[in-house]
Formats: sequence, C-alpha cells, structure tokens
Amino acid sequence: MKKNISRATIDRLPLYYRMLKSFQEKGEQTISSEELSRPLKITPEQIRKDLTTFGNFGRKGVGYDIDELINKISQILGLQHHWHLAIIGVGHLGAALANYKNFSELGFKIVALIDIDERIIGSEINEVKIYDYKNLKSLVHRKQIDIGVITVPANSAQAVADSLVEANIRGIWNFAPVKLEVPENIPLINEDLSIGMCSLSYQLAKLEDSRSGYKIF
Amino acid sequence: MKKNISRATIDRLPLYYRMLKSFQEKGEQTISSEELSRPLKITPEQIRKDLTTFGNFGRKGVGYDIDELINKISQILGLQHHWHLAIIGVGHLGAALANYKNFSELGFKIVALIDIDERIIGSEINEVKIYDYKNLKSLVHRKQIDIGVITVPANSAQAVADSLVEANIRGIWNFAPVKLEVPENIPLINEDLSIGMCSLSYQLAKLEDSRSGYKIF
Repeated sequence: MKKNISRATIDRLPLYYRMLKSFQEKGEQTISSEELSRPLKITPEQIRKDLTTFGNFGRKGVGYDIDELINKISQILGLQHHWHLAIIGVGHLGAALANYKNFSELGFKIVALIDIDERIIGSEINEVKIYDYKNLKSLVHRKQIDIGVITVPANSAQAVADSLVEANIRGIWNFAPVKLEVPENIPLINEDLSIGMCSLSYQLAKLEDSRSGYKIF
Repeated sequence: MKKNISRATIDRLPLYYRMLKSFQEKGEQTISSEELSRPLKITPEQIRKDLTTFGNFGRKGVGYDIDELINKISQILGLQHHWHLAIIGVGHLGAALANYKNFSELGFKIVALIDIDERIIGSEINEVKIYDYKNLKSLVHRKQIDIGVITVPANSAQAVADSLVEANIRGIWNFAPVKLEVPENIPLINEDLSIGMCSLSYQLAKLEDSRSGYKIF
C-alpha cells in the first residue's frame, strides 16, 4: 500500500537528507533523533514521527542506520532519478538558480539555460550553456529535460509553460508570481518567495505583541 | 488566549491574502470557501479549517466578508507593521529579490541594498540605493531596518548575521545555504530553494512509480 506523506513532512526530508549526508561524510554509521534534532532545530519527536511515516528504521539505543536512511529518503524524494532541469529565463533569478549549489548535492542536474536575449545566448554559467528559446522543443527532447524552471517575467510565464507542456515536459517549477494553468498530469510547484517573508513577519509580530502585552486572540 | 498557528497554515495565509485582495479590487464584498478554493487549488475544507483557527468569520450562505478577512490576515501576519528590509549581498539573488514585486504588495518595504563591491555601491535597483557594507550598523539605525535579508555567499553569511545582530536587527531571512547561529530572541528563517525542487521530484517519482506499477511501500 502506498501512503500519502504530508507536504510538511516532504518539506523536511531534504533537511534530514543533507544533515545525514554530512554525518555520513564524517564517517558516522548511526545517528539518534536527538543528534539530528540539535543542528536542525526540529524536535526529536517530530523527526521520529516523520521517519516512521515510511518504515521502522530506528532501533532503541542504537539509533538510525545513516546509509539506510539516506537511501530511503532518496527513494521517497525520487532523487535517484537525477532529474534534468532547464532554466527558462536567465535574468537575475535564473542566473542565481544556475549558481545554486544545493541542487547538484541533491542529484539534480541543470542541463540547459534558455533565453530569448541574443546577447547572452551562447555564453555559459557554471559550464552550462545558454540556448535560444526558439529551439525549446528540440532542446527538451535532445537534452532529455524533465523539469522546466520558469524564471521569466510574469506576463510571459503562461506562454513558456504552454510551450514546455507541448514539448512533453514532465514537471514545472514556477518562480513567476502568477498562477499557471497546466494539464492535471503535469506536476507544478509554484514557488512563492514572499511566503518565507510572511512567516518571518508573523514571528516578529508575535514578539512585538508579547512585548507590548497586546494579544491577537 | 494566544493560539499557536501551524507553520503550514501560516504558509497558506499569504496565498489567501493575495487572492482576497484581487477579489476586493474587483469590487466583491463576500466570498465563499469554494470560490477561494478554485483558483488556489486548495480544498474548501482546508480553507475553512485554516480560517477558523483565528475566529469565526464565515456565515452560512453568505460566505466570508472580504475586507474583514483581509484585515484579520494582515494582523495575524503582522503586515500592518510595514517592515523595513535591507538586502545584504547584491549578486544575482539579491538583485532578483530587489526586483520581486510580491513584497511591496504585502506591505514590505526594501529600504536599502548593501554590498562590499565598490563598483556597484551608489547605484540603484528599483529606486533603492546600494550602500557600503562598512556602514551597516549606522544604516540599520538610520533607515530603521527591521529585517536583514542575507544573500551573500555561504562563507560570509555568518559574519553578516553577526554584524546584523550587533546592529540590533529584529529578524533575519537567510538565503545562504548554511545554518546560521543567532540569539534565541532573533527570529530567523532559512530559505532553502531546494525544498520546492524536492517536492516536485517527489511528485514526479510517485507518477513514475505508478506508471511502472512499482510501489515504494
């Protein structure tokens, strides 16, 4: 039976994965939820709860087998597929993502940067070439691109999404601040950079209110 | 009594807020959870559950009062504080954030860009000036900066965080792929751009497995 894992748990798995990798690199073989808890600032209870969602790994007094856990998380998140990414729109955000180190650590591979600006087409960022947008369809096929990362301005994002779908893309990761329409069978993640900001604002406001003695509820 | 609202609910509030604003601009006065549900692709049940966390707003057969709900979400998220932001590190990511429209829509104000590169100090992005990092402390005071957004390379991020804390910053939003140490009383959000990518990978892998008939569990 396939279980559905909550979005919140899925969002914590990359954190566990990266932390486990760093313990693995130090030569550690097992780890307790308490040891994972400290650097991550996630409670041991939450970690144990997340990890039991997909099997019984922990052994009392021994902890988790690091290699086994890394393999399992990698399998759950599909990291072993080593998805090929293309970034469409090489402005500041596209260039920032092209330089982002965490992707390759997780097995994602940026295989193409794509833009319409002739002045930058042909140049490279991090040894990845910038291709002409007009060749999008053949690029997706030739470079076996799985995921299109949309970093174009909001008013061109839907047209880019349509072209990607037409080119048989598997999934879309959208950074443009606009809701995209794509077929049901194409997974779409809308990245909203203001969510982190709002979360911080919420925490600051709570502190502010507790200082002033004012209560929201 | 002050309730704690789950992180997942807090993360959905900016989506509700923005959607409510767009209905408000169209002159609408009330809205049902079903109407909110469609464009957001969040179930009406989830929306009702989220909104009842902080009070009884909906009226059967009438729906939610849009103005009231906007005010309440704004209050919960602390948007009425109109926090002042400074972006430290004006590389591609810093420049991309300086150009990001969603922040101002939510009432956040970028009041300073800060860098060490003399070639860009003094120039402007979106009418916000780039200041010299060596004046960080006086800038935080003079511009009443509430939140420091760290977009410097990983190896300088902790030093920048330390300087911000010394300058009496209220909160830190960190984009550098490194865990920062800051005092307990300073809210810190670590933005991890690979989480969205992993979430997409998870969905693609699930699809892949269901196509191939393979089951993870």
